[in-house]
Amino acid sequence: MSNPFWSPELAQLEPYVPGEQPRGRLIKLNTNENPYPPSPRALEALADKQLAEALRRYPDPESTELCTAIARQYGLDSGQVFVGNGSDEVLAHSFYSFFRRPEPLLFPDITYSFYPVYCQLYSIDYRMPPLRDDFSLAVENYAGPAAGVILPNPNAPTGRYLPLEEIERLLRLQPQRVVAIDEAYIDFGGESAVRLIGDHPNLLVIRTLSKSHALAGLRLGYALGQRHLIEGLERTKNSFNSYPIDSVAQRVALAAVQDSAWLADSSARVIATRERVVAALTGLEFEVVPSKANFILARPRGIGAEDLYRELRRRDILVRYFNKPRISEYLRISIGTDGEMDALLAACAEIIGSRNG
Amino acid sequence: MSNPFWSPELAQLEPYVPGEQPRGRLIKLNTNENPYPPSPRALEALADKQLAEALRRYPDPESTELCTAIARQYGLDSGQVFVGNGSDEVLAHSFYSFFRRPEPLLFPDITYSFYPVYCQLYSIDYRMPPLRDDFSLAVENYAGPAAGVILPNPNAPTGRYLPLEEIERLLRLQPQRVVAIDEAYIDFGGESAVRLIGDHPNLLVIRTLSKSHALAGLRLGYALGQRHLIEGLERTKNSFNSYPIDSVAQRVALAAVQDSAWLADSSARVIATRERVVAALTGLEFEVVPSKANFILARPRGIGAEDLYRELRRRDILVRYFNKPRISEYLRISIGTDGEMDALLAACAEIIGSRNG
Repeated sequence: MSNPFWSPELAQLEPYVPGEQPRGRLIKLNTNENPYPPSPRALEALADKQLAEALRRYPDPESTELCTAIARQYGLDSGQVFVGNGSDEVLAHSFYSFFRRPEPLLFPDITYSFYPVYCQLYSIDYRMPPLRDDFSLAVENYAGPAAGVILPNPNAPTGRYLPLEEIERLLRLQPQRVVAIDEAYIDFGGESAVRLIGDHPNLLVIRTLSKSHALAGLRLGYALGQRHLIEGLERTKNSFNSYPIDSVAQRVALAAVQDSAWLADSSARVIATRERVVAALTGLEFEVVPSKANFILARPRGIGAEDLYRELRRRDILVRYFNKPRISEYLRISIGTDGEMDALLAACAEIIGSRNG
Repeated sequence: MSNPFWSPELAQLEPYVPGEQPRGRLIKLNTNENPYPPSPRALEALADKQLAEALRRYPDPESTELCTAIARQYGLDSGQVFVGNGSDEVLAHSFYSFFRRPEPLLFPDITYSFYPVYCQLYSIDYRMPPLRDDFSLAVENYAGPAAGVILPNPNAPTGRYLPLEEIERLLRLQPQRVVAIDEAYIDFGGESAVRLIGDHPNLLVIRTLSKSHALAGLRLGYALGQRHLIEGLERTKNSFNSYPIDSVAQRVALAAVQDSAWLADSSARVIATRERVVAALTGLEFEVVPSKANFILARPRGIGAEDLYRELRRRDILVRYFNKPRISEYLRISIGTDGEMDALLAACAEIIGSRNG
C-alpha cells in the first residue's frame, strides 16, 4: 500500500468504513438515518433568493446566527457552541484538542468504530474498558490516569442509555480531563447531559442534525461546553479550515434547529415504531438490547446473524452486520417507517419460519 | 490562554486569521471573491425537488459524480481527483498525508499565510526561501533535502505567475517528494500544471471553486494527481470525516464545473477589469506587481499603505493590508466589478491628490 510520497505513518492508518450507501431501491435500515423528510422550514431555506449573493461570498466563518440559535435551544451562551462539518469533524477536532496526552484515552470496547481511527490519526493511545455482559457501562472502569473519556449516549451500536447520575459520576472520576458525551441519538428517549455543563468544566456534549433532524445529507454537528473547551475547538478549527460550514448549510441548519415542534413530533413517531418493533422481534424470539436510539441491536435465534443479514439482503432489506468480537451474533437495525419495519418483520418471520419448519 | 483540559500543544497554535467578512454595505475588495454571481446552472441545482430525500440520507462519501465531472474537464480519470470542504481542507489533508517528515517543508517567504499554520498543526518543520526583490520565485532555492514543496501559482498575495517550465524544473529538483501547486487563482490568465500530471508522479495540483467559479460560500476544493497521491488523501480523509461534502454542495458544484462557458466568460471579464485597473493605478504612480490573479498587489506613492488602507476604509472601501515583512508598504486589492473599481480609483485619486495638493 505504501509509496515514497506518503508521510511514513500514513500506510499504517486503518480508515473508518462507513455503512454502505447503495443507490438502488432497497429498504435501507443500515446507517440510522431518519425515515421522515426534514422539517419543511429547513427545505424552504433552500429557496432563499439571496443564496446567489451568499454563494459568491465566503460564509460567516463563525456561523454566528446558527450558534446563537443552538445556544438558545439549551439556555446556553453562543460562546458555548462550536459547529462543525458533521459531528465527525467535531469529534476529530475534539480528539486533537483534548486527548493528545501521554495517558490513554478511555472508551468502551463496543462503541462507535471511528474513535480508534481518530486515535490512530493523532497518535493517541487508548484503552477500552469492557461493557458488562448485558452491554451496560460500568462507570467505575473509567477511573485512573487517562487522557480523557469519550462515549456515545445512547451507546452505538448497542442502543443502551446511561442515566445522567452515572454521567455525573464519570465527570467526577476525571475532573482534570475532558469527558465527551456523544449524543447523536439522545433525542430518541434519553435525557441530554447539557444541563450538567454549568457545574462541570470538563463536560463536552457533542450532537448532530443527522439523525433526529433528518439532515444526514447536510453535515452539521456541534459541541456544547464551557467557554474554555469551545475556545480549544476554535483554535484547532482555525488552524485547519476557517470556513467549514457553507452558506447553504448555515441557513438550512438554522431553520431546522428552530423547528422544535417538528423535532418532537418526528422523534415521537420513531420511538413509537421502535417500541412496536422491539415487541414484535421479541415475539419472534430475538434477544433485543434495550434501546433509547433510533436503532436496535438484536440477536436472532435459530439462525446466525450473518446468515440473517444475507437473507434479508436477498430480499432487498439492508441492515448492519458487524463482524466484531461480542456483537457478531447481533444485527443493528435502524428504525424506518412503519411500512418498512412491517416488511422487515415479515421477512424475518418468513426466514426464521422456513428454517424451523 | 492555556488551561488544564487542552492538549499540551494547543496553546502554542497560532490560528489562521481570515480576511474580514463585514456585514454592512461596503465595497468589499479584501478576500478575492468573484464580483459576479455563480453560474445560473449552479443556482438551479438548489431548486432540485429531490433534495428533501437527499438531505435525509448520508451523502455519497466519495462524491463520485462530482469527481467524474471534474476529471472529465481535465482529461483525467476520476480516481485522480480528490474533493474536500474548500481547498483549505484539501491543503490540511495534503500537509498531513505528504509533509510530515524529518526534513523541512519548503514554501516562499511571502505566500498564503495558512501554510505555516498547517505546519504548526501537524508539527512540520519548514523553511521559507525568499522571493527575489521583484517577488518572482527562484526555483533553484528549492533543491536539497526537504519534506516537499508547496506554493500557490499565481502566488498570493503577490499575484505573480510562475511559468510551467519553471514548475517542471521544480518537479525535477524534488523527484522523491510531493510538489503541491495551489492553483486557486489559475483561471485568471495562467496555465494550469494539470497537463504535467501524467509525467510527474510527485505533482499535486490543488484547486477551488471559490474564486473563478464564484462559489466561496459553497466550500468546494479539489486536488488532482496520480492515483497514489489521491489514495493517500483518501486515507487521511477517511480517518477524519467520511462525508465532508454535503448533498447540496455535491449538486451545486457538479452543475458549476459543467458550465465551462460561464467560467470562460466570467474570468475574461475579471481579467479585462484587472488590466484596466493596473493601467489606472500605474497612472496614479502606484507600483503594481504583475498579476495573473483576480487581485493585485500595489504600492502607493506619496502615502503609506496602512494610511491608504484606513482612508479607503473611511470611504467604505475595504482592501487587504498585511503588516508583514517586505509587503507592509503594499495593499492587496481584489478585482471587483467595473463600478466598484471606478469607485476605488476615484477614492485613491482623491486621497493621494489631497496629500500632494
